[in-house]
Amino acid sequence: MRLLTESPIGFEPARPWQELETHVRGQSRLFHQIAALRRSPHTGREHEFTRLHCPEWVNVIAFRAPEEGGELLVVEQFRHGIDASTLEIVGGVCDPGEDPSESGKRELLEETGHIPGRWIPLGSCTPNPAIQDNHCHFFLALDCRPAGDQRLDQCEEIRLWAVPWREWEDKLRTGEIHHALVLAAFLRLFYWPGWLDLKASLERAEAGAE
Amino acid sequence: MRLLTESPIGFEPARPWQELETHVRGQSRLFHQIAALRRSPHTGREHEFTRLHCPEWVNVIAFRAPEEGGELLVVEQFRHGIDASTLEIVGGVCDPGEDPSESGKRELLEETGHIPGRWIPLGSCTPNPAIQDNHCHFFLALDCRPAGDQRLDQCEEIRLWAVPWREWEDKLRTGEIHHALVLAAFLRLFYWPGWLDLKASLERAEAGAE
Repeated sequence: MRLLTESPIGFEPARPWQELETHVRGQSRLFHQIAALRRSPHTGREHEFTRLHCPEWVNVIAFRAPEEGGELLVVEQFRHGIDASTLEIVGGVCDPGEDPSESGKRELLEETGHIPGRWIPLGSCTPNPAIQDNHCHFFLALDCRPAGDQRLDQCEEIRLWAVPWREWEDKLRTGEIHHALVLAAFLRLFYWPGWLDLKASLERAEAGAE
Repeated sequence: MRLLTESPIGFEPARPWQELETHVRGQSRLFHQIAALRRSPHTGREHEFTRLHCPEWVNVIAFRAPEEGGELLVVEQFRHGIDASTLEIVGGVCDPGEDPSESGKRELLEETGHIPGRWIPLGSCTPNPAIQDNHCHFFLALDCRPAGDQRLDQCEEIRLWAVPWREWEDKLRTGEIHHALVLAAFLRLFYWPGWLDLKASLERAEAGAE
């Protein structure tokens, strides 16, 4: 890569801003809103930034075992931000101190009643590095099998679907699946070294089931 | 797709919750925080939800014209949410009433000083449908050429890079690129019908330049 435009103020990406003051402006179950007065290491200018201190999040791409049908486990639920329902993969919030891998298995069991046969980390993303300080951790759960009932939070109104890979991919292509963290999870899956083999086996199984 | 678990409360995804009251809890340049008391159409239960009313966002995957080198235009900047620098594609916030396509071209010019030869919509995503009400709109800008200087906001401390596709793809693979909206933009690109042809031409040009 080559530099096209040097910053006129001598921006050095590794030099952090100095944090002069912080105030908690609001708290909710989802985040603490923090106002931070910071000073630029390059210009000395001071500016107040809004930051959302959030718990870590987790998303799980979960496929049922071949003898269970081999489909993707998909959760349909009402989302109050957009005031509409979505189709999403399994996901949720890590409890304080909980390892994201355990959070993912817990959410998988709570939302779908399934346990995985294989459990593969797919890395993580920053949901919004401009204002949030957390990560969303991605996992691939293979050979999932039913192991109990859903256990939902009080306000979770969801339905659980089994979706063949080809049908899910059509939904990715058309934009019916539009949750950024779900799209990011599949981007990570597509760069997982085992993806092409897994995809071929999913497509073979679906062709055989027709 | 087949339904695995019917909701015990008779969840119907198309039935919205009734909004009983809303209160603005906080305002910033980035969002209005709203507390909404809502009633479930299925259980009649009332619950307060936090919603962030946000402006629309835009992200642009921009490639320079072949005679300019054909690389991806990449912005390096300090992100206060994670207190570190990131490599990202061009992006920003739509002005009130501004068409997202115009926002994208404006941000491209402001952040990189380039104008596109071809401009292709890649759809949109919902950055966080659980709590945000906005979309991030994606565009592909091809044959970009220098047309002026960067014009940055007061607090934007950025450097502009030209990154060959193969190098960028390595960064996607390793997780060095971790901004969820950037990952979602490339997922959309990979499902754009012209992608395989574009990818082949980028790789041919890079092989020829070695």
